[in-house]
Amino acid sequence: MEEFANLPGVGRRSAERLAFHILKSPPQAALALSRAIADVKEKVRHCSVCWNLTDRAADAGGAARCEICNDPQRDRGTMLVVEQPKDLIALEQTGMYKGLYHVLMGRISPLDGIGPEELTVSGLLGRLDHPDLNPGGTPVVELILGLNPTLEGDGTSLYLMQEASRRPGIRVTRLARGLPTGSQLEFANKAVLADAIQCRQEVH
Amino acid sequence: MEEFANLPGVGRRSAERLAFHILKSPPQAALALSRAIADVKEKVRHCSVCWNLTDRAADAGGAARCEICNDPQRDRGTMLVVEQPKDLIALEQTGMYKGLYHVLMGRISPLDGIGPEELTVSGLLGRLDHPDLNPGGTPVVELILGLNPTLEGDGTSLYLMQEASRRPGIRVTRLARGLPTGSQLEFANKAVLADAIQCRQEVH
Repeated sequence: MEEFANLPGVGRRSAERLAFHILKSPPQAALALSRAIADVKEKVRHCSVCWNLTDRAADAGGAARCEICNDPQRDRGTMLVVEQPKDLIALEQTGMYKGLYHVLMGRISPLDGIGPEELTVSGLLGRLDHPDLNPGGTPVVELILGLNPTLEGDGTSLYLMQEASRRPGIRVTRLARGLPTGSQLEFANKAVLADAIQCRQEVH
Repeated sequence: MEEFANLPGVGRRSAERLAFHILKSPPQAALALSRAIADVKEKVRHCSVCWNLTDRAADAGGAARCEICNDPQRDRGTMLVVEQPKDLIALEQTGMYKGLYHVLMGRISPLDGIGPEELTVSGLLGRLDHPDLNPGGTPVVELILGLNPTLEGDGTSLYLMQEASRRPGIRVTRLARGLPTGSQLEFANKAVLADAIQCRQEVH
């Protein structure tokens, strides 16, 4: 009960209910949960290339590549930069993106003392500078900035854009900003409408 | 009390409170409200060009032009199509748009029996075909589709796009679709993320 109560969103009563549920459940079910929790810490690691999460076995040097970096079907010349593995999962669920990723593990936030050194920025720039660090040895030709459309996300994007612009041959894009599909114009706020007007796109 | 209770969102108790408030208020205040309500029906009409709302006096033929159509500072070669006057007001509040509008007064909705004939589509196409119907006699060079990013809005956009594509010299654009500014990627739905990936834009 004490261990369950340490989890986020689990209060004393919920912890009690969970503990009694395990007490009543067959040993296999309890052991499966116990093993899954232990496995997370043992088997799940960050991809040595893009920092995505992976449960693939590490090689002798302790490095592991994720499913996406290992997939030869993906477009290895395109790299989408996101803040967190969660963002990568959300984008993967659309099934629209066929390139590789790079997870920054946060965003630049001077107020919290987080600069590029606290993130995986050097790994990202390494992949831009040395194609052999990229899966398949493919040079990056398009860098897509997929950071959150927030103040800190935009600041981080600006920094990465400046770094990338020093490297010729890399096209830098960002995820589109505008009206969310399914929304109503009259309820959109000014910033969203201003983006929608400024970034308007040709239709054919 | 009965009249107030007919208004949307005003129940029996609110109507009572409003009625007693008027009973207690000085005659000038009550008359000002009474006059404002009468004036709406008498003075507010649709602009004879773009169907925006206006309180300008009508000419001998009963036609009136709104502030926007009358403003020579606006870019009269650009026309932004919206569904409702409310949408126009929301876009104007951004201060980002300097062209003219055309209010459709709805959207094409076959299930509700609303086709182009029930809307102001013929007025819109007239303005595209005959520059002299447009303020200042300026030909329209850019048509911006600003309908809601919904199923019916998209259907209406498609219809207008086809009509405009038959008219050479008109560039057709639509308001940008993507992540709303200030949002979080991980909470965006699949359709929004798919738009954001597909419509990604070059940054410089």
